[in-house]
Amino acid sequence: MAANTGFQPNWIEAAPEKRSFRSIFKWGDPHSCKHPNEKLFQLLKETFGLTDSHFTVPVNDGNRPVAYRHPPRVITPDHAADIIRIVGDENVSADDYDRLKFSTGKTLEESLRLRQGEVQRVSDLVVHPRHKDDVRQLVAYCHQKKIPVYVYGGGSSVNFGLRPSKGGITLVMGTHMNRVVRLNETNQTVTVQAGIMGPDYEAALNEAPQRYRTRHRYTGGHFPQSFEFSSVGGWVVTLGSGQMSSYYGDACDLVISQEVVTPIGDIKTLDFPATANGPSIDRIMIGSEGCFGVLVEVTLKIFRYMPENRRYFSFVFPTWAKAVDAGREIAQGQFGMPAVFRISDEEETHIGLKLYGIDGTLLDRFMRLRGYQPMQRCLMIASAEGERRFAGNVKRGVKHICRHSGGMFLTGYPTRQWEPGRFKDPYLREDLNDYGILIETLDTAVTWDRIHRLHQGVRSVVKSRPDTLCMTHASHFYAQGTNLYFIFITRAENADDFVVFQEKIVQAILQFGGSPTHHHGIGKLFSPWMQSHLGAAQMAVLKALKHHFDPNTIMNPGGQLGLDLDGQHWREIR
Amino acid sequence: MAANTGFQPNWIEAAPEKRSFRSIFKWGDPHSCKHPNEKLFQLLKETFGLTDSHFTVPVNDGNRPVAYRHPPRVITPDHAADIIRIVGDENVSADDYDRLKFSTGKTLEESLRLRQGEVQRVSDLVVHPRHKDDVRQLVAYCHQKKIPVYVYGGGSSVNFGLRPSKGGITLVMGTHMNRVVRLNETNQTVTVQAGIMGPDYEAALNEAPQRYRTRHRYTGGHFPQSFEFSSVGGWVVTLGSGQMSSYYGDACDLVISQEVVTPIGDIKTLDFPATANGPSIDRIMIGSEGCFGVLVEVTLKIFRYMPENRRYFSFVFPTWAKAVDAGREIAQGQFGMPAVFRISDEEETHIGLKLYGIDGTLLDRFMRLRGYQPMQRCLMIASAEGERRFAGNVKRGVKHICRHSGGMFLTGYPTRQWEPGRFKDPYLREDLNDYGILIETLDTAVTWDRIHRLHQGVRSVVKSRPDTLCMTHASHFYAQGTNLYFIFITRAENADDFVVFQEKIVQAILQFGGSPTHHHGIGKLFSPWMQSHLGAAQMAVLKALKHHFDPNTIMNPGGQLGLDLDGQHWREIR
Repeated sequence: MAANTGFQPNWIEAAPEKRSFRSIFKWGDPHSCKHPNEKLFQLLKETFGLTDSHFTVPVNDGNRPVAYRHPPRVITPDHAADIIRIVGDENVSADDYDRLKFSTGKTLEESLRLRQGEVQRVSDLVVHPRHKDDVRQLVAYCHQKKIPVYVYGGGSSVNFGLRPSKGGITLVMGTHMNRVVRLNETNQTVTVQAGIMGPDYEAALNEAPQRYRTRHRYTGGHFPQSFEFSSVGGWVVTLGSGQMSSYYGDACDLVISQEVVTPIGDIKTLDFPATANGPSIDRIMIGSEGCFGVLVEVTLKIFRYMPENRRYFSFVFPTWAKAVDAGREIAQGQFGMPAVFRISDEEETHIGLKLYGIDGTLLDRFMRLRGYQPMQRCLMIASAEGERRFAGNVKRGVKHICRHSGGMFLTGYPTRQWEPGRFKDPYLREDLNDYGILIETLDTAVTWDRIHRLHQGVRSVVKSRPDTLCMTHASHFYAQGTNLYFIFITRAENADDFVVFQEKIVQAILQFGGSPTHHHGIGKLFSPWMQSHLGAAQMAVLKALKHHFDPNTIMNPGGQLGLDLDGQHWREIR
Repeated sequence: MAANTGFQPNWIEAAPEKRSFRSIFKWGDPHSCKHPNEKLFQLLKETFGLTDSHFTVPVNDGNRPVAYRHPPRVITPDHAADIIRIVGDENVSADDYDRLKFSTGKTLEESLRLRQGEVQRVSDLVVHPRHKDDVRQLVAYCHQKKIPVYVYGGGSSVNFGLRPSKGGITLVMGTHMNRVVRLNETNQTVTVQAGIMGPDYEAALNEAPQRYRTRHRYTGGHFPQSFEFSSVGGWVVTLGSGQMSSYYGDACDLVISQEVVTPIGDIKTLDFPATANGPSIDRIMIGSEGCFGVLVEVTLKIFRYMPENRRYFSFVFPTWAKAVDAGREIAQGQFGMPAVFRISDEEETHIGLKLYGIDGTLLDRFMRLRGYQPMQRCLMIASAEGERRFAGNVKRGVKHICRHSGGMFLTGYPTRQWEPGRFKDPYLREDLNDYGILIETLDTAVTWDRIHRLHQGVRSVVKSRPDTLCMTHASHFYAQGTNLYFIFITRAENADDFVVFQEKIVQAILQFGGSPTHHHGIGKLFSPWMQSHLGAAQMAVLKALKHHFDPNTIMNPGGQLGLDLDGQHWREIR
């Protein structure tokens, strides 16, 4: 390993210039960043054969004013005037910067293209509805005029879910429609406007006694990595999942009822936690990714917030196979589920121990002495929540199983090391990209009986690319299976080169028995595989629903969920 | 209370005559019965002002050969010949007894009419498919010829779900399609043919080590009162729920994947426990009650069978309000859910203590001494399952909450008294009906904030009928609400008189904020209220799906789920 020379890479710390490309593609808070630590920096240099001098002048930092020429494609001045009459002048923008900002998600590909100043698709007009009646009028108007409607929640889509492939308008939900409508403590539910962002949502629940005079504090239990910059509505319409969902349930499990504005009218579902009224309309709207309508309000389950009961624990296993066995046994053990619950494969453990500052410590040496070797050992980090004894019993059950599976208890230290940065890792991307190193993720659902075949199959494809890191973890556990989340770090000539590589990985995921995604949604990115994955019969059901709700194909058209593609590839749609 | 005179009512114990009406409407095993015990008998006499002499000669016992004149309405000899070519002669019956048997569910109304020899709707032809390919060919044939297709699982429908309103054929799933296809221990799932009955299903799982060489024994965790005479497929397509579903989940929570034969082809869903592939096709097929297609195979979650860990406990509360408070607190407490979990209202507690043999015992006197008075006190019976300490902690948590809510611990005795008869209560109906006393049930879902309004509102309607008993319990608990299960015992002039009363109760349930049913499904019985309950927009979605899967309206036509009614009442359809 290269010696630490005291060299400090020239990571960019300044907030992006106002109205710059960088201000659009950069993750999160403009003033926040997370630099690779020394260990990771050394690893990157080794992996890619780079020297310190490579890290002195950022390239393609995109820190220049947004400029492009994409005239409106659908919206005429008359349309704009009509829309202004609905929502008011101050809630409509045809400004080029706004148009691009609200047309852009957080894929690596978008970031790479914007660094080069390459703008692909933009909305014609950005609209900030004030309330659900605005949405109703806008959708009805666009339905009548056949104007495409896209929806922007938190903007954290990693699948081109908000790409306005056909122009038209983009509704920004978070500007005004970001409030708690009511908290029902008796039913333990909260009703919110769809545009409320994660931290506001969670704060409202945590502070419920002060804000709503409730007896208890509450939590939503939903903490995706994008938590700080994603909306509750986005979680629901994309079938999201969070870092504690093994305990609290995925977004689809949290929804009690919804109000969705569709081109043919409102769908307002009922608030029974379970009933036998025929097929679930809720589960038709959840995951519909803006193709059927605009989610305006949603009622969700909430949970008592009892951080005082939280327990942390972690383990190291001699091999990935042993870690997986333990993970499955825990998920099937019927003693309650951990909240945070992750197992990292050999390579992710190797890099993770560097990231969490454990590599090279006394703990690391102790692990090695006990036979847990680098690039073989696998880390499990976990926590338990809920009532005090319940959480304690989960910890006890996990310990019991892990010991029987060759695991060594590492105390709660690694979990505690992981926790403060759990929403911060996406910030790493800018630093890496600034020096031509690419990082992206793909995640997939998998049953227990296919996990090793899938893991090995996908890894072999990723690693067949020279000088490529591939870290994998499982972070959402069910008795029947889990997910695999692949993080790959590589270099590529350009965005197109990267896209070819990414497609190869998706194909491998599907070939080896995974689903296109466990919790990122389909968007447009995975649409080419929808029909072959689900089969024509299931796709026909989704298309029939699409036709029912959106006969003029105005809702998120241009490939979303693969519902409106007639043999075209989504990238080709104009 | 009338003294016990030693009189023994002349309850019928003999099995019904072969090929009699009684053999069709009688619940369950022909040789089994459950008589009202002495306490209940006394209560019935008091309530309805009857003397012992009333119970000497059964009336309208229906113990005579089935005879009716309903010529086939759709099926021609040519059709029958074609169908015989598909499934073989031995798997087709046009016999009048078979036609009626497989056209009849278990509503009180059907029983009352058959006692009088009144036959309303019968299938033209009974068909026993041998395997899913038979079903495929039959459905394709009927689609082409526009022949209605009805499906008979266990025959326990309480909503006319299998009534062949328009003639055509009835598929009997349990004759041949009743096997375990495979048990996947790694994924903790089992795949079964839809016609497998509850006890066969559970036995296969309990005995998995012997039968399938598994490491563990398993349970399906699904125990509806109809368990012994209902099919796994029926549980799924009607959104069923069982006596332990508060812990194991409702049928909809148990399904991993399905194979459904529809008129336009097969729907075969994937086996991921969770994935983000858009709207849930599984949740479209679950609860579709035979309107979209025929469920032929289903893969379900299973659970480790650990009866050695089971804990029993029960409590008495001074009032219904206190029992409800405790039930809600338990469901929201985040320490795990009890498996059996029931609270009975004042009147059900009063009658239940008689039924379970507790009334008049030392325990009863002790309760009274401690201030738990008849017609005020309410009983909670419960059990816990799962891993040993988990189950223990559930019991501990429940005790803690119940004590804080004024409950007195009654040990596990009442739960143990209830348990052996938990599938047997439906047998009571024949005895009561034999003497002109009617008993029927309606169940509804309810949120916690509407439970008292609903309970009181429905009770007041039921009790406004003279000499009517109304017992109510909640037996399925969620953090957001529960169900109310109303059992009413009354006398009526005839079936039509009863139907008017029943409709009044359904209207009250909906008026006071319940759903048409929590776990009995909609069938045809509740179809008149579907549109007003769900709203036109949700109904339009279900109708669009109906049109997609079944463009010729052959699947369970004539009112099922209210999907093919054009202003007609289902009873009027011919």
